[in-house]
Amino acid sequence: MHSNTSNHSNTAFFTKNTFQESYQEKILTGDRPTGQLHLGHFVGSLQQRVVLQESHQQTILIADLQGLTDNGHNPHKVSTNILNVLADYLAVGIDPSKTTISLQSAIPALSELTMYYSNLVSVARLQRNPTVKNEIATKSFGLSIPAGFLTYPISQAADITAFNGTLVPVGDDQLPMIEQTNEIVRKLNRIAKEDILLECRPLLSHVPRLPSTDGKSKMSKSLGNCILLDASEKDISQAVKSMYTDPNHLKVDDPGRVEGNVVFTYLEAFCSDVAYVETLKSQYRRGGLGDGAIKKILEDCLQEVIKPIRERRHLFASDKAQLIDIIREGSDKSQTEASAVLHRVKHAFGLTLF
Amino acid sequence: MHSNTSNHSNTAFFTKNTFQESYQEKILTGDRPTGQLHLGHFVGSLQQRVVLQESHQQTILIADLQGLTDNGHNPHKVSTNILNVLADYLAVGIDPSKTTISLQSAIPALSELTMYYSNLVSVARLQRNPTVKNEIATKSFGLSIPAGFLTYPISQAADITAFNGTLVPVGDDQLPMIEQTNEIVRKLNRIAKEDILLECRPLLSHVPRLPSTDGKSKMSKSLGNCILLDASEKDISQAVKSMYTDPNHLKVDDPGRVEGNVVFTYLEAFCSDVAYVETLKSQYRRGGLGDGAIKKILEDCLQEVIKPIRERRHLFASDKAQLIDIIREGSDKSQTEASAVLHRVKHAFGLTLF
Repeated sequence: MHSNTSNHSNTAFFTKNTFQESYQEKILTGDRPTGQLHLGHFVGSLQQRVVLQESHQQTILIADLQGLTDNGHNPHKVSTNILNVLADYLAVGIDPSKTTISLQSAIPALSELTMYYSNLVSVARLQRNPTVKNEIATKSFGLSIPAGFLTYPISQAADITAFNGTLVPVGDDQLPMIEQTNEIVRKLNRIAKEDILLECRPLLSHVPRLPSTDGKSKMSKSLGNCILLDASEKDISQAVKSMYTDPNHLKVDDPGRVEGNVVFTYLEAFCSDVAYVETLKSQYRRGGLGDGAIKKILEDCLQEVIKPIRERRHLFASDKAQLIDIIREGSDKSQTEASAVLHRVKHAFGLTLF
Repeated sequence: MHSNTSNHSNTAFFTKNTFQESYQEKILTGDRPTGQLHLGHFVGSLQQRVVLQESHQQTILIADLQGLTDNGHNPHKVSTNILNVLADYLAVGIDPSKTTISLQSAIPALSELTMYYSNLVSVARLQRNPTVKNEIATKSFGLSIPAGFLTYPISQAADITAFNGTLVPVGDDQLPMIEQTNEIVRKLNRIAKEDILLECRPLLSHVPRLPSTDGKSKMSKSLGNCILLDASEKDISQAVKSMYTDPNHLKVDDPGRVEGNVVFTYLEAFCSDVAYVETLKSQYRRGGLGDGAIKKILEDCLQEVIKPIRERRHLFASDKAQLIDIIREGSDKSQTEASAVLHRVKHAFGLTLF
């Protein structure tokens, strides 16, 4: 996961660049605060962030403004989850002394950058964005797609460039966002006649997406098919008991399928003893290992993984003032960084009179 | 032109409103700084502003960000004209001690408000906006309409509401902008469950649009068919000499047409002696008044109107530091005002954690 630093040896880049001294490979990532985080996030991104903060500059943006782009009329869903998400971050070990955690709405420079970039992206280009197209198809906007939703790739480009983000952890489906960002970067650099913004590249995750406990729908708190990071012992127990296994594995002695069997997917993701999981899989395939037995093993494992996270989370969540201090400090730092980038962009447009 | 204050007596409004004490009818107006101002602006808006500043709170926004929405790749056109437009304002008598003159790009709260409002306006609604539709039709965007251009009515709503603007001087063609703003205001107030934003109404100008000197195209410095506010004596003389009159009025004794005759339109607009202009019109219609003669009368009149403006303009333009001080002070004041409105909007969305 270490960064490829080949860009740095590009002499042309350095010659033209005015801020190389402060430059280091930097990660920009984040979440829309529309719900508490769950084990899907833990596997998909949080664990990686905990590792990356040791080797990289990392900014994690709680993207409340982006959360509003499809919740404009239901802002409560966003506002009430900001501190939830922050507590989740802290609980899993994201350390504000190593990672800058900031709040999008508390960084005015991001909105300002979005305004400038909006003039360099056509409506047709936004409408062609495959990620946005897919998302629009799965949401119930009808013909009423909010302007903020169509244009959110521009806002995302502002987020990435504002922190000189060069490495952006994404899934395959988010690659068009990176491309859109780099198009804006190139246009801006052409206007500025120097490389004032950095292109970014994806840090593709190779971790497969964790399935929901029902093995069907997307994880969602309201569907009760995910395990939250503060799940109680009882929540965990119930969630594992209800997990989708192999519907044809009716008797203990029957051979069972491991593929698509949610219990095994979770065992693979959370049981650190790989050899043990392989043994269980063989046994299950052969027959002779009951669903009850593997669920008990998984439950024990999840209880062990979640217990310290839950405890830390309760501790952090109980001190709201501390949470606010953390996000305020991170946001202030981010606003300072983003202001420097904004200044370069405004200068490119000739708008630094004072 | 005095404001209709009937809104103020709406008890329900006052009961729910938290900022009535600081409230006064307020005008928001402005210009895109894409060129020096000319006599068309003088007649169409500047004279009115000089009058209104005596009776109203007035904010004039130099809308550089809006100027970029169709000049993103040619920002020089915008940036070089900010101080030109400011000098034009001062030259005609707009007084920064009475009118707040501010620069859009220097007021971050405007960009922030635009982001929030973007979530409440659909793309389809923007595409239906008649003003935007007309403008798109007359510009050479092709299929590449910049996102910032399509969404500029949202940014304009931010401008108006940020200063509690309740009275917006517009031409007929701009009425859809007022409507769009009030739609956003109502949506926001519904989310906030109180009237945190004020609806605005148009202050319709009844002054007919001043024609260009060629009587055909829109006024444009590059076409040389307009008279700038700093036109030299020679510029004025040449402009009047080239003015479109009645093409069938070939000899002095021929009867001439006054309608569509640019010289007479200008005489009506700039000669304060209305009776004298009426006498000239009768004489021209009858025959016996040559184009040379009426042009000489108009030229004398314009020389007299423009001389003091030109002199004041040169004075202001020669002190760049003073210009910057004026626009900086106005912008700072505007940012303070806009921040208060932004705070209410963020509060409505639940985003005032700190």
